[in-house]
Amino acid sequence: MRLYASTSSDSSTAASAQEDGLHLAPSPLKRQRLESKEERSSNGSSTDISSPPQADSAVVESHLATLMVKCPDRKGVIAALAQLLYGLGCNILASDQFTAEEGVYFQRIRFDLTDMVVGTANKAVLERAIAEVADRFGMEWRLFYDGAVKRVAILVSRLDHCLYDILIRHRAGELKCEIPIIVSNHPDLEGIASSFGIPFRHLPVAKGSGQDGKRAQEAQIEALVEELGIDFIVLARYMQIFSEEFCSRHAMHTINIHHSFLPAFEGAKPYHRAYERGVKVIGATAHFATSELDAGPIIEQDVTRISHRDSVHDMIRKGRDLERLVLARALRAVLSDCVMVYGNRTVVFEI
Amino acid sequence: MRLYASTSSDSSTAASAQEDGLHLAPSPLKRQRLESKEERSSNGSSTDISSPPQADSAVVESHLATLMVKCPDRKGVIAALAQLLYGLGCNILASDQFTAEEGVYFQRIRFDLTDMVVGTANKAVLERAIAEVADRFGMEWRLFYDGAVKRVAILVSRLDHCLYDILIRHRAGELKCEIPIIVSNHPDLEGIASSFGIPFRHLPVAKGSGQDGKRAQEAQIEALVEELGIDFIVLARYMQIFSEEFCSRHAMHTINIHHSFLPAFEGAKPYHRAYERGVKVIGATAHFATSELDAGPIIEQDVTRISHRDSVHDMIRKGRDLERLVLARALRAVLSDCVMVYGNRTVVFEI
Amino acid sequence: MRLYASTSSDSSTAASAQEDGLHLAPSPLKRQRLESKEERSSNGSSTDISSPPQADSAVVESHLATLMVKCPDRKGVIAALAQLLYGLGCNILASDQFTAEEGVYFQRIRFDLTDMVVGTANKAVLERAIAEVADRFGMEWRLFYDGAVKRVAILVSRLDHCLYDILIRHRAGELKCEIPIIVSNHPDLEGIASSFGIPFRHLPVAKGSGQDGKRAQEAQIEALVEELGIDFIVLARYMQIFSEEFCSRHAMHTINIHHSFLPAFEGAKPYHRAYERGVKVIGATAHFATSELDAGPIIEQDVTRISHRDSVHDMIRKGRDLERLVLARALRAVLSDCVMVYGNRTVVFEI
Amino acid sequence: MRLYASTSSDSSTAASAQEDGLHLAPSPLKRQRLESKEERSSNGSSTDISSPPQADSAVVESHLATLMVKCPDRKGVIAALAQLLYGLGCNILASDQFTAEEGVYFQRIRFDLTDMVVGTANKAVLERAIAEVADRFGMEWRLFYDGAVKRVAILVSRLDHCLYDILIRHRAGELKCEIPIIVSNHPDLEGIASSFGIPFRHLPVAKGSGQDGKRAQEAQIEALVEELGIDFIVLARYMQIFSEEFCSRHAMHTINIHHSFLPAFEGAKPYHRAYERGVKVIGATAHFATSELDAGPIIEQDVTRISHRDSVHDMIRKGRDLERLVLARALRAVLSDCVMVYGNRTVVFEI
Repeated sequence: MRLYASTSSDSSTAASAQEDGLHLAPSPLKRQRLESKEERSSNGSSTDISSPPQADSAVVESHLATLMVKCPDRKGVIAALAQLLYGLGCNILASDQFTAEEGVYFQRIRFDLTDMVVGTANKAVLERAIAEVADRFGMEWRLFYDGAVKRVAILVSRLDHCLYDILIRHRAGELKCEIPIIVSNHPDLEGIASSFGIPFRHLPVAKGSGQDGKRAQEAQIEALVEELGIDFIVLARYMQIFSEEFCSRHAMHTINIHHSFLPAFEGAKPYHRAYERGVKVIGATAHFATSELDAGPIIEQDVTRISHRDSVHDMIRKGRDLERLVLARALRAVLSDCVMVYGNRTVVFEI
Repeated sequence: MRLYASTSSDSSTAASAQEDGLHLAPSPLKRQRLESKEERSSNGSSTDISSPPQADSAVVESHLATLMVKCPDRKGVIAALAQLLYGLGCNILASDQFTAEEGVYFQRIRFDLTDMVVGTANKAVLERAIAEVADRFGMEWRLFYDGAVKRVAILVSRLDHCLYDILIRHRAGELKCEIPIIVSNHPDLEGIASSFGIPFRHLPVAKGSGQDGKRAQEAQIEALVEELGIDFIVLARYMQIFSEEFCSRHAMHTINIHHSFLPAFEGAKPYHRAYERGVKVIGATAHFATSELDAGPIIEQDVTRISHRDSVHDMIRKGRDLERLVLARALRAVLSDCVMVYGNRTVVFEI
Repeated sequence: MRLYASTSSDSSTAASAQEDGLHLAPSPLKRQRLESKEERSSNGSSTDISSPPQADSAVVESHLATLMVKCPDRKGVIAALAQLLYGLGCNILASDQFTAEEGVYFQRIRFDLTDMVVGTANKAVLERAIAEVADRFGMEWRLFYDGAVKRVAILVSRLDHCLYDILIRHRAGELKCEIPIIVSNHPDLEGIASSFGIPFRHLPVAKGSGQDGKRAQEAQIEALVEELGIDFIVLARYMQIFSEEFCSRHAMHTINIHHSFLPAFEGAKPYHRAYERGVKVIGATAHFATSELDAGPIIEQDVTRISHRDSVHDMIRKGRDLERLVLARALRAVLSDCVMVYGNRTVVFEI
Repeated sequence: MRLYASTSSDSSTAASAQEDGLHLAPSPLKRQRLESKEERSSNGSSTDISSPPQADSAVVESHLATLMVKCPDRKGVIAALAQLLYGLGCNILASDQFTAEEGVYFQRIRFDLTDMVVGTANKAVLERAIAEVADRFGMEWRLFYDGAVKRVAILVSRLDHCLYDILIRHRAGELKCEIPIIVSNHPDLEGIASSFGIPFRHLPVAKGSGQDGKRAQEAQIEALVEELGIDFIVLARYMQIFSEEFCSRHAMHTINIHHSFLPAFEGAKPYHRAYERGVKVIGATAHFATSELDAGPIIEQDVTRISHRDSVHDMIRKGRDLERLVLARALRAVLSDCVMVYGNRTVVFEI
């Protein structure tokens, strides 16, 4: 995975946090963006599917940043962070906080570095100062610079509605990210990728190859993700189930979309079973993929009404509209650094 | 149960239909309204909780009726019924039909008897004519005269939001029914009943009496339902689970409301579990009570949004708003003769 | 305009109905589909943007049809139509009716011609029989055969979200129509058209040409619509206002989409004014275009929530999602022969 | 009006702010709650409709407070307030902020005084400290102590749905306020008031008395509001229009509810006009009443779907459900100190 910003106060904290089921999204990242870029240029820039580093000039130009912190709830956290940023000459544009009943404190601060007293470019000073406060309060933290545009890989199979939706929104400027690659286990959607000028990689699971074939394909995907410095993987109706290992490694930066029902129908053909039960509402859920299928932290959900006139086919059609809307909203929240995870829940700050 | 209108084409059909899981709502009714009224006056009119028969004058004045039919899908059904009503001089005001994929045909016809060629009062001719067509097509049918206002018993425990909602809507004329009784296993809501001028009966389950106590209380409820000629039982947050026998006897005319989630959370404290899972949507479901808990045919559902800021307490509060809205809509649909049941599904025609 | 099916009981009725503001959608059509096709082949088949007549085989294969009627409310209408179809051996699959308070009766009947006693192909007998009943009851009527796929022209300017949405749904089979042409006053969206394999025609309004230039461009559009046998014109964010004459000629088969607010904001920059007023809800409305701007009969509307955090830009973004959803639903309803117009209102039967 | 907490940094600022159309809700309050209570006991405690001061013990027990501030956007505001509270030993529980595009900064801080270093009871120190910071940043501010329960007067006419809804929610603990009085220009709803144990005052507008009669009744209402120390006036379908003077004096603490449409229909019988236009959505808007009818800052809005089957009567019924829901949400937001006003807009922080 690409490594684009600074990190939790120390790596051991981050590691243990992960074991406790406490995560920021995305999951622990260990190195600086600059290292990452050097790395990429040394080992990967020649590949033809690597997008040109068009974001780099933006790094210099944009002076906005988002700080996300999580720590045990204690007096003085807000004051300490506000004082720190004020002291450095940063202007807080927005701040949202939430204290979970379990005594965990979350904050998202959006601020402007333009008038930073040590110079806008001197991010090391800023990051050192944050790290110090973080140590004092036992904080996990992430710092995202607007210039460091996130990189998203889209994984698809044959269904195109979610893919189209993301690409259209991306082109319209709704999604602040680069999409350097679309990966599929089927070749069907290559034409769509190319009509949007985005590289497409067909990585089929070899037929009859069983678990070995699946693992081999997963390894190819992971190599690509690493090579391209991908920050988030979007499963836009990707119809393969990843191994537990893959899910663990990419937990909290892999986003999935699936249908939901009241009540839920587990197992195969849920639309058929929802039809038989005569539900009046169907839904869709976007969540972080975890090793437990479809049970990761929920980012966004929505529903639509159904009547007795709706066939299974109608429900699937209406479900498509939900899936693409809900996935797009979840992706937008994640790309805007609004989503934090704890336990099996998310805090989704408003943009 | 009170018996207010005519019935399926013959009682053996109705019985076997029930075994097949095919029902109209309400479930098979065997005698005419007039009999029923005589019965009531002979054995029950002296009870002080029996409401005065204020609907009787309406019986004479109202000339509208609703016919609900269900039969195997066959050519000519619509024509036969339309021709029958036209021939008798009835004016069809609205007709809605639906053919389920399983090949079952449903129709709801609303018509005006004012110009009936045999005289408006001569309902026997109308019913005989319908019974004939019904025989030909293997129809189950129900005929509801607007004048025969349905009678609803409300069962409550301690929560008042659904009770209040029904009573306010009833007073506002939104619910076309009489409410001759409110029954509760607790005395708490008697004041509300009396402020709306509705008799209240406290039927507690004797403490420590186990299953016997529960059955005894059920028997009291059933006696009351019978005595008062009740058509529908509304469980407005009634926190007792009925026996399977009770449910079977009152299936398809007992309406329950409960919370729903995406995904569903079975077992105790579902709001707490939904909270832990961080759901972004909660719902409520109104359904016919059957012997399988909360699994009967769904009449109406709706949902509301939830964020990370919502505590369990907030979810319960928002759930209350949903419960009363969804229950009211379901009750209104049922009272307007818009709901038909087949298998575990409903057809809910628009009013 | 292309002429694909039969028509109102006589052409003078249809004409006067239009003057009265009473219309079925689409507006009066005067000739048979077969004529129309002959006409096209004689005068237009050489044009390279004319789609191949792929629907023709479907004409033979599909045996479903939809009859839409409108007449003064009278006893016996349902019976007469049901009897007619039953007598001919047609099987009614669905029937929906509505009687407006003004005493106007609407019915949509969907039926199967497979077992028609005079042979499935003998549509003339069917149409003559309907015309007879129609005369008796003073009906306007339209008959749509499933095989006669409707032809839609999409008009766009520079915004692509509605165009993409229609094309994706069309490809997914959600919209039962052919799209032989996309017309624009700007060249920008040609690439999208070509990625879906649909002909694109750039018809600019000559700069500085004033009303003359506008009329000239309108004439080009009308010629194209005529040549291609277009049934519906969809204004998918087409930013030109048509002349009154154009609107009158194409009323009830031109569908427009625009934003809506509570309260409404007339005039320029409505999003800015809605922002200033701090609205909490914004909406979109799909309607038939008439000569009065944005005031034609409403087909579909929907809304989305707004908070104080939403900038004008956010409102426009959320509005885009609404616009494409609402336009798609309206188009689907119209293409499924579910929409009838009277006065300035629509009856939209459920599909 | 009752005066319960501290106030803007100085009264001249508050006054000029009001002229600029910048307000917090509620509008400027000039004295301390204790004064107010003394005042009441000296001049009004003998009135039988004055509720007993049951909130007083709560004043002692509750240690939570909400600070709302508004000022020109400047660096260091968050830091200054956070530092101030931290320095005093207060624990910030929640903080929400918003910077409007016009460069106005809004913040809501909820905090716990339990460990205040100068003692929990020593609110004067806290208020002085805030006033100092406020002076520095040109802040308007309000401080609300949880113990100082707000007092709400409900004004009604003959429609009971909104009144019932508020009273039921109040009894269920959803609305943190006292309701010492219900006022009506009609006697009809006295029974409802008494069934909830709330004093009812019938203040009719003398017939044929014209503007004088209206003014006389307004004066009676204002006297009552003053006498009872009312913080918010809720117009729960109160069908009288207040004079401009009354509206100005009570702007930003008078909440009204009315129907809304897309598009809007001005003037009489809007439901009838919406029906004629065939709208597919109707809405309701809760707003602060201002001297311009129905044009004050919007607090909350919602909508519901409508079809061609809905008569004017159905629309009114569905509108009732909207009205009570929207009014309840608005009132809850206001009572939770979540609503701030600027220009003609509101900032509604999430509870």
